[in-house]
Amino acid sequence: MGEVKKYVFSFGSGRAEGSGAMKALLGGKGAGLAEMTNIGLPVPAGFTITTEVCELYYKNNRKYPEHLREEVAEHLVRLETSTGKKFGDPKNPLLVSVRSGAPVSMPGMMETILNLGLNDSTVEGLAKLTGDRHFALDAYRRFVGMYGSTAKDIPSEEFEQAFDEIKDEATRKRLGTGAGKRIQDNQVNADELALLIPKLKAIYRKHTGEDFPQDPQVQLWGAITAVFESWMAPKAVTYREVEKITDIAGTAVSVVQMVFGNLADRSGTGVCFTRDPNKGDNSFYGDYLPNAQGEDVVAGVRTPMTLSEFERTEPEAYGQLVEVRRRLENHYRDMQDLEFTVEQGKLYMLQCRTGKRSPSAAFHIAVDMVKEGLISKAEAVLRIRDKDIEGIFYPVIDPSKKPELKKAWLVQGIDAVPGAAAGKVVFTAKDAELWAARGENVILVRKETSPEDVGGMHSAKGILTATGGKTSHAAVVARGWGKCCIVGCEALEVDYEDKLFHVGSAVVREGEEITLNGSTGDVYRGSLPLIQAVPPESFETLMSWADAFRSLEVRANVDTPYDAAKARELGAQGVGLCRTEHMFFDSEERILAIRRMIVATSPQERQTALDALLPVQREDFAGIFRAMHDLPVTIRLLDPPLHEFVPHDEAGQRGLAKATGKSFESIRAQIDRLHEQNPMLGHRGCRLCITFPEILDMQVRAIIEAALVCVKEGLKVEPEIMHPLVIDRREFAFLEARTRKVADELIQKSGLKLDYKVGAMIETPRAALLSEGIADKAEFFSFGTNDLTQMTLGISRDDAGRFLPDYVDEHRAAIFRHDPFYTLDQEGVGKLMTMAIDQGRRVRPKLKVGICGEHGGELESVKFCHKLGMNYVSCSPYRVPIARLAAGQAAIPHP
Amino acid sequence: MGEVKKYVFSFGSGRAEGSGAMKALLGGKGAGLAEMTNIGLPVPAGFTITTEVCELYYKNNRKYPEHLREEVAEHLVRLETSTGKKFGDPKNPLLVSVRSGAPVSMPGMMETILNLGLNDSTVEGLAKLTGDRHFALDAYRRFVGMYGSTAKDIPSEEFEQAFDEIKDEATRKRLGTGAGKRIQDNQVNADELALLIPKLKAIYRKHTGEDFPQDPQVQLWGAITAVFESWMAPKAVTYREVEKITDIAGTAVSVVQMVFGNLADRSGTGVCFTRDPNKGDNSFYGDYLPNAQGEDVVAGVRTPMTLSEFERTEPEAYGQLVEVRRRLENHYRDMQDLEFTVEQGKLYMLQCRTGKRSPSAAFHIAVDMVKEGLISKAEAVLRIRDKDIEGIFYPVIDPSKKPELKKAWLVQGIDAVPGAAAGKVVFTAKDAELWAARGENVILVRKETSPEDVGGMHSAKGILTATGGKTSHAAVVARGWGKCCIVGCEALEVDYEDKLFHVGSAVVREGEEITLNGSTGDVYRGSLPLIQAVPPESFETLMSWADAFRSLEVRANVDTPYDAAKARELGAQGVGLCRTEHMFFDSEERILAIRRMIVATSPQERQTALDALLPVQREDFAGIFRAMHDLPVTIRLLDPPLHEFVPHDEAGQRGLAKATGKSFESIRAQIDRLHEQNPMLGHRGCRLCITFPEILDMQVRAIIEAALVCVKEGLKVEPEIMHPLVIDRREFAFLEARTRKVADELIQKSGLKLDYKVGAMIETPRAALLSEGIADKAEFFSFGTNDLTQMTLGISRDDAGRFLPDYVDEHRAAIFRHDPFYTLDQEGVGKLMTMAIDQGRRVRPKLKVGICGEHGGELESVKFCHKLGMNYVSCSPYRVPIARLAAGQAAIPHP
Repeated sequence: MGEVKKYVFSFGSGRAEGSGAMKALLGGKGAGLAEMTNIGLPVPAGFTITTEVCELYYKNNRKYPEHLREEVAEHLVRLETSTGKKFGDPKNPLLVSVRSGAPVSMPGMMETILNLGLNDSTVEGLAKLTGDRHFALDAYRRFVGMYGSTAKDIPSEEFEQAFDEIKDEATRKRLGTGAGKRIQDNQVNADELALLIPKLKAIYRKHTGEDFPQDPQVQLWGAITAVFESWMAPKAVTYREVEKITDIAGTAVSVVQMVFGNLADRSGTGVCFTRDPNKGDNSFYGDYLPNAQGEDVVAGVRTPMTLSEFERTEPEAYGQLVEVRRRLENHYRDMQDLEFTVEQGKLYMLQCRTGKRSPSAAFHIAVDMVKEGLISKAEAVLRIRDKDIEGIFYPVIDPSKKPELKKAWLVQGIDAVPGAAAGKVVFTAKDAELWAARGENVILVRKETSPEDVGGMHSAKGILTATGGKTSHAAVVARGWGKCCIVGCEALEVDYEDKLFHVGSAVVREGEEITLNGSTGDVYRGSLPLIQAVPPESFETLMSWADAFRSLEVRANVDTPYDAAKARELGAQGVGLCRTEHMFFDSEERILAIRRMIVATSPQERQTALDALLPVQREDFAGIFRAMHDLPVTIRLLDPPLHEFVPHDEAGQRGLAKATGKSFESIRAQIDRLHEQNPMLGHRGCRLCITFPEILDMQVRAIIEAALVCVKEGLKVEPEIMHPLVIDRREFAFLEARTRKVADELIQKSGLKLDYKVGAMIETPRAALLSEGIADKAEFFSFGTNDLTQMTLGISRDDAGRFLPDYVDEHRAAIFRHDPFYTLDQEGVGKLMTMAIDQGRRVRPKLKVGICGEHGGELESVKFCHKLGMNYVSCSPYRVPIARLAAGQAAIPHP
Repeated sequence: MGEVKKYVFSFGSGRAEGSGAMKALLGGKGAGLAEMTNIGLPVPAGFTITTEVCELYYKNNRKYPEHLREEVAEHLVRLETSTGKKFGDPKNPLLVSVRSGAPVSMPGMMETILNLGLNDSTVEGLAKLTGDRHFALDAYRRFVGMYGSTAKDIPSEEFEQAFDEIKDEATRKRLGTGAGKRIQDNQVNADELALLIPKLKAIYRKHTGEDFPQDPQVQLWGAITAVFESWMAPKAVTYREVEKITDIAGTAVSVVQMVFGNLADRSGTGVCFTRDPNKGDNSFYGDYLPNAQGEDVVAGVRTPMTLSEFERTEPEAYGQLVEVRRRLENHYRDMQDLEFTVEQGKLYMLQCRTGKRSPSAAFHIAVDMVKEGLISKAEAVLRIRDKDIEGIFYPVIDPSKKPELKKAWLVQGIDAVPGAAAGKVVFTAKDAELWAARGENVILVRKETSPEDVGGMHSAKGILTATGGKTSHAAVVARGWGKCCIVGCEALEVDYEDKLFHVGSAVVREGEEITLNGSTGDVYRGSLPLIQAVPPESFETLMSWADAFRSLEVRANVDTPYDAAKARELGAQGVGLCRTEHMFFDSEERILAIRRMIVATSPQERQTALDALLPVQREDFAGIFRAMHDLPVTIRLLDPPLHEFVPHDEAGQRGLAKATGKSFESIRAQIDRLHEQNPMLGHRGCRLCITFPEILDMQVRAIIEAALVCVKEGLKVEPEIMHPLVIDRREFAFLEARTRKVADELIQKSGLKLDYKVGAMIETPRAALLSEGIADKAEFFSFGTNDLTQMTLGISRDDAGRFLPDYVDEHRAAIFRHDPFYTLDQEGVGKLMTMAIDQGRRVRPKLKVGICGEHGGELESVKFCHKLGMNYVSCSPYRVPIARLAAGQAAIPHP
């Protein structure tokens, strides 16, 4: 016979069977109670049923493991012994609270049930014992309501309504009819409460078909089971899905001796943070509500005291609490969130956990704690999350308006770019520009966006699309500007004709206001107030520490001199991706020039169009080189399919016909011919330069001439010319040779000195598989992980919205933990990347390797890039700080 | 100082410096002359300049290697010595022919120049020496014309016209004016020829600005250079491109002593085959033209003798030739194509090479030679080419109509399915069905085809599309039926509205006749006569030998019981791919049933639609199981994106709305939502069953129920259920578990015994990279190399037409040797396949591995599959014999 597994861990009287390290087994709450007990803090006694029981409960078809009941019974006896009270004893009843507690904080699960153990006879015992019948009956009233609503899913409104009726009657009795105001909960007297309790029991019976349980054992197991059942409540499941919580077994249940914050006036209950969770200052922060149980604080029925008022009222208890704060911060070396109760002047700690904090407080506290000697710089860097950085750069919806959000909520899409935005709905890029020009805040709503929309996207405060994923056109472009963007909102039916969109039966018309929360994907009706956080001083301090740790270089993906300057300000050490094509949409002349090139029917005509583009490109490149002087700038040659540049509507095509002197029919036919079944796998990338090498010639010429202009100005420039969508060594050798021919001739002719590099974007599986041959000629590799992910998984990011959610849904096959377009698929795509780097460096040991896909600004992906031994990551300017942080964290050795 | 490289190899007087094995260096012609010399056949003496010289000539910017001139001079002296004649000696001049000859036969290069060495003085010497002034002047006349036209690119018509004028004058002189008929070439007398020669020289001077060279050395080097220059002539380059000839250095040049078939009547020239090249019979086959030089035979100015006439005229020479035939067949152990000249009764062999033969002759000869003990069965199998098999299964354009083809030629597309077809042009699938029903032969012309067109495609004799590659929808479907198909004909502008298509300025309207040559991609105007070859008996014999060698199993891709029976007849050992979706287009009810499923808005509605599909699918599967009893049948679950099944035109959508009782607007909106940017990477394959597992349930149910029906009938069935587009082990585990659940329940309930397998299609790079995890649950892998190629290379096969030709164009980067959608990309895709198999068999050593992409029926790809250790290949029924041959060839150890 094997050892009997231990499922229950007790705590109390200064010692606990568990500890703070046993969070996975005891849940956050259970582990906190055990740890506080062990370090000698005043904690009521109790025991915790482990998360393993929850796991077994579901594994065994909702049956408890053998021995559990016996084990719980043993611990209950121990609790009775240590408290000197007895469960169900009418004379000296033991009352307990039953609390859920998963290894990570998880809203949506069952809340605490207080005062368990009360029944028709123990309530009288409690009344006698405390000499306070009102207190005892109030506790019983609360228990019946709480048990009924949380353990049995009876709508709490029914219990509240019964209480309201009693209160109304009491109000009438005391103040007469027509009183404007109902009396408070605590003004209801004991006799009135005695009338209320049978009504509550009747409600219970109505819903459950059973009498309210009088046996405390039945109450206890009812509550325990309710906690375990709440693990699979839809709210909890959804929360775990949204937060990608998959690796925990279940929730624990803690059964804790009751202490009463509502027992006379020298009692009360409070919550506090060991530092200010909003600002991050090292000041004690919290609320105290005298004569109250925990739920009263949350419900906000009365205004609580500040901690200084608490100090004046209960100096002794406050003194104990200050000492607890000191010990806990020293013990946990982090800011703590505490719940406590004072019972007749004596302090009890009920909960302690790492405190949630605002993004700026996260920086402030981490930096302060280093200064205080509590933690090391490495620990400080490790404590910052990507969301903290996002939080200080992007506006958010005023958190005080949270209650209004529910009512205003309209629909949820994919959270593509964080931050919030509010404004009037428009449906075309042109309208966005026009409305914005006259000072309106607008939100551009589209089925999807295309490069033609870029101007309007820039004018809009936020962007909402019905299709696409986190790396769709809209998302990528918006991310580059740090502009709030929600995509893939499949429930949105956009009707361009009538200028409105439907969400189910709801209709929003052009000009109506909406608010986007890009951090969650939520869309709200109306214009909600926004708050723009300001990066605190501590941000710079902490980032400098992260920089000191990291070995990865961080560059930015920028397309304009303006973005380049912004990126440099945010710490970018160069440009990892300059998309030459984005420049073409900057003005009418530019787009016309590229269109002329596309519809050219002879090499001469194409050359004339290219000649017109040359000075434009040269000027753009020179601007970026100047903004990034002394730093490397990687320029990718033309990449998108040509059809992205031409007008697809009749008016646009007629305009192009007029401008080029061709017939409308021939323009239309030519544009029709550009149509592709799968443009992602079509005529794009370096394939354009294989069929039209004159495009390569013009672009390389523009890059090198721009660089030479800057060299003449005395600037140091490091152009890196990158060929996209490479698939083969012979293909790359052709491109490389042609690039060098154009470049070397220009440099030689100029008589100036200019070093440049030629490299390949590794974004097809074949390039990764056969990287050895490409590295033979390529001086650098840059992983285009967006396309590499699309091709490796065979998933179009634009079309993934219809099925990818099912792949990350734990109710289905639970296939992926993360959206692979957001967090790099290390297993599959990462394997190709590893091969590509290993093989590439075998032929060229000093091969420079970077990443310029969207993953280059995502925390986990950047860490993976560090592990692969890359030289740099490149991301949109606003994600540069996140990449710097991630690179710093990755370089810190794990404890 | 290193050894001086040898660039010239002599032959003559019974010994040669080279040999038949030195084809790469001496070219086919040079090697043949050397070999024939070595085995003692009567060959005029001469020497060959190697292909290396050609290579160096181009490498060194059209300069000859050092020492070449000296080496040629030495060999010329040797030739003079052995012949007893002297180059340029007016008394006894040495005359030579200069011949091009690459390692493989290559039309488009310079033709032979005869009689080189003649000039104004040697011509007189030749006249004296032969006593035949007419002969000498005729030889000179020929030489000036040949040298001028072939070495100096002077239009030969000008020389011919000058000759015609002389002939006209002679005609007038002899027959008077008004003679209906011009005299023959050989009727022109010596004096008239003497008048002609100055005129020919004048033409030469007019074009070249120089006098016709009198120095035989200048003539010789002019001819040699002309041969090397012709290597890069556009015709030759195009031929090499079309035939994918890339690995040969260049052409050789042979300089051979002249023998004269036009020297008096006991001379002549002939060509012959050692066996009948059309039927393959072991009978001597050829033509002989008395008093003629080689060019006369080719020009067809006089009707040649048969070989029996030759035997009667020149019994001695004929006897020598029969002996030559015997010795050459015994020596080369293959049918030979010979050129010979008889000079005054004496036989000279001028050329000998492996003879081209018709497809059925290829089988006949190979089988005969085994019976005769000349070659082994292995050699016989290795001698058959894939084109031989295609040639006996598909109709061809009557080869006797070759001259007419040029005039009728319209445009060229991609040769998707071989064979030929002629008929009236129609532009819709519906018209194809209607016209065919009334007995018309039709050619369906479309921009592209979709599954909705399958009925019409089946009715058409041939299919022509403007877009798509060799694995586009049209190509794949047509290949399954062995139906002539040309795709990717980008020059075709299809105008559905006016029911016509343009090719440049040419217009072809509905109802006009065209002819397709699917083996070359050529499209002709009008209805050309077709010939249907019949597989000879020897086909079966040879295939049985191939079968005996091979270890690879060959299966077929079939979708109907009819195709299954056909495939079995052609030797298929099972079904490697049954595409369940193709069945849906078989009738109105079926397609409506699947459409109901797609537009269902509730799970109940979807289930009802699926319930209606179940009996239909079950019946289809049972039919295939019956046709393939005792053999394995792999059924792939639903694969294509759902939008392929729904109508995209308003009429169709209104019809569907009516049939389903939904509003037209809601149907249209639902279909619009199915639109995808890149459907190839969209919601398809097993992703459909992840989002709608009820589809899996229905299909597995249909398969297993059908199998159980057959088991009850006493048949042995081996269903293999295959999940397409797998990307992950967890995804596959989910599918596998669900498949087994449905299947096992049905089997258990039936009380019957049925073994089935569950496997994964490996067609995404990720599945190949992470095959270990998939093999954990998969009993078999089937490579879908169409999709695997698309994703690995990032090339959509439907869109490749616009740029892939540049990738196989040797004037560009010469990136690929073959279209990777036709011949497997062994380097890239092959690397993934190797990984997938190795990793898969590491966890499951007995993992069954096959291929079901189009590559499964392509010769080189099948050989590669053998090398990878696969268990089977699967291809369309009509390619089964090719796969059997390839598998047999692959299994024969290389010498």
